[in-house]
Amino acid sequence: MAGAVVLLDFWASPFCLRARITLEEKGVAYESREEENLLGQKSELLLNSNPIHKTVPVLLHNGRPVLESANIVAYIDEAFPSKPLLPTTPYERAQARFWADYIDKSVFVTGKGIWLSKGAEEREAAVKSLIEDVKNLEGALGDKDFFGGDAFGYVDIIALGPTSWFHAYEMIGAFKLEDHCPKFSSWLKRCLQRPSVAKTYPDTEKVHQLVLKLAEMFG
Amino acid sequence: MAGAVVLLDFWASPFCLRARITLEEKGVAYESREEENLLGQKSELLLNSNPIHKTVPVLLHNGRPVLESANIVAYIDEAFPSKPLLPTTPYERAQARFWADYIDKSVFVTGKGIWLSKGAEEREAAVKSLIEDVKNLEGALGDKDFFGGDAFGYVDIIALGPTSWFHAYEMIGAFKLEDHCPKFSSWLKRCLQRPSVAKTYPDTEKVHQLVLKLAEMFG
Repeated sequence: MAGAVVLLDFWASPFCLRARITLEEKGVAYESREEENLLGQKSELLLNSNPIHKTVPVLLHNGRPVLESANIVAYIDEAFPSKPLLPTTPYERAQARFWADYIDKSVFVTGKGIWLSKGAEEREAAVKSLIEDVKNLEGALGDKDFFGGDAFGYVDIIALGPTSWFHAYEMIGAFKLEDHCPKFSSWLKRCLQRPSVAKTYPDTEKVHQLVLKLAEMFG
Repeated sequence: MAGAVVLLDFWASPFCLRARITLEEKGVAYESREEENLLGQKSELLLNSNPIHKTVPVLLHNGRPVLESANIVAYIDEAFPSKPLLPTTPYERAQARFWADYIDKSVFVTGKGIWLSKGAEEREAAVKSLIEDVKNLEGALGDKDFFGGDAFGYVDIIALGPTSWFHAYEMIGAFKLEDHCPKFSSWLKRCLQRPSVAKTYPDTEKVHQLVLKLAEMFG
């Protein structure tokens, strides 16, 4: 069940990054169509594929849209079942989904508090919260190489998405995550060496410049 | 893989309701332990099982905690695989997960806007939004009996959770959802006839009284 795979993509989106890493991990050939979804017009294809949220990423598999990044990762894992990314036992799967959900409910929201903060006090509080979030993730990581254990998998991909904005958070919030969360930083370095990640990860200084522009627009 | 199943439960929680319906649908014997998690002390078991969020529902299966309601529904479906609730094809599964996610990101947030609103204007806007959310769900339901088609399943259970607060929203927002969303209302009546739902659904007038109290506390 290969078929045509198209990703409605945006280079700096932490959510699109998850989809790209997953496709690379699975060795699925795909076409990335860049959507300028910040200022410019959204494509008709995007609006028709995701009429409710109107956001990237959208994975089109044989023309049928799959939406929401964690869902796209799970879909690719099921549609291309060789080299599974999610664990196989119900309990481990539930653990993986819990941490994926935790990541979406924590670090993104907290990160926004850093780059959209109104003043130093609010920013410092957000930095403190982000460090707490990542410490919780370190708890889940434990002494393992990857969240799932020895093998790179679902939670690693979900967690990698937001890390692409961490350099921007560090610059804006004037802190070094590594000083507080060395285990997480080692995990990130380990992941960045993987071809699937190295090939798809954005230039984090370019992301930083973009976040500064976004902060000006929405701050 | 039956084993001991305990649900850390709260009668009025839309999230706990999902877990109860799922256990009943699967015919899994379980013990419900009521947590008074609004004003009272949370149990040690709850705090130890869910140290990050400290919320119900928690499903303890042979002592191991599973957290977050949609995740609990998926876990029960996988751990007790007879009579599956999620569809079997990757694309249909992705569709189901999309709508589950949509429900969690829309109707709860909008509903909060009704009972926590500061004044009539804000409340009316929230009512309008809720109706739009439910109209989107009607789009997903189409002319089917249930979200998954002929058979009651995952999205039905996820959607049933918040409906237990709809009577409260209607009373506080002074509207009748049925006038705007007749298809959804028919679906709800159909679901309420199922033994799994009838047995576990809270008294919606009691929920209304509770929501009024909550509004006083947090409004």
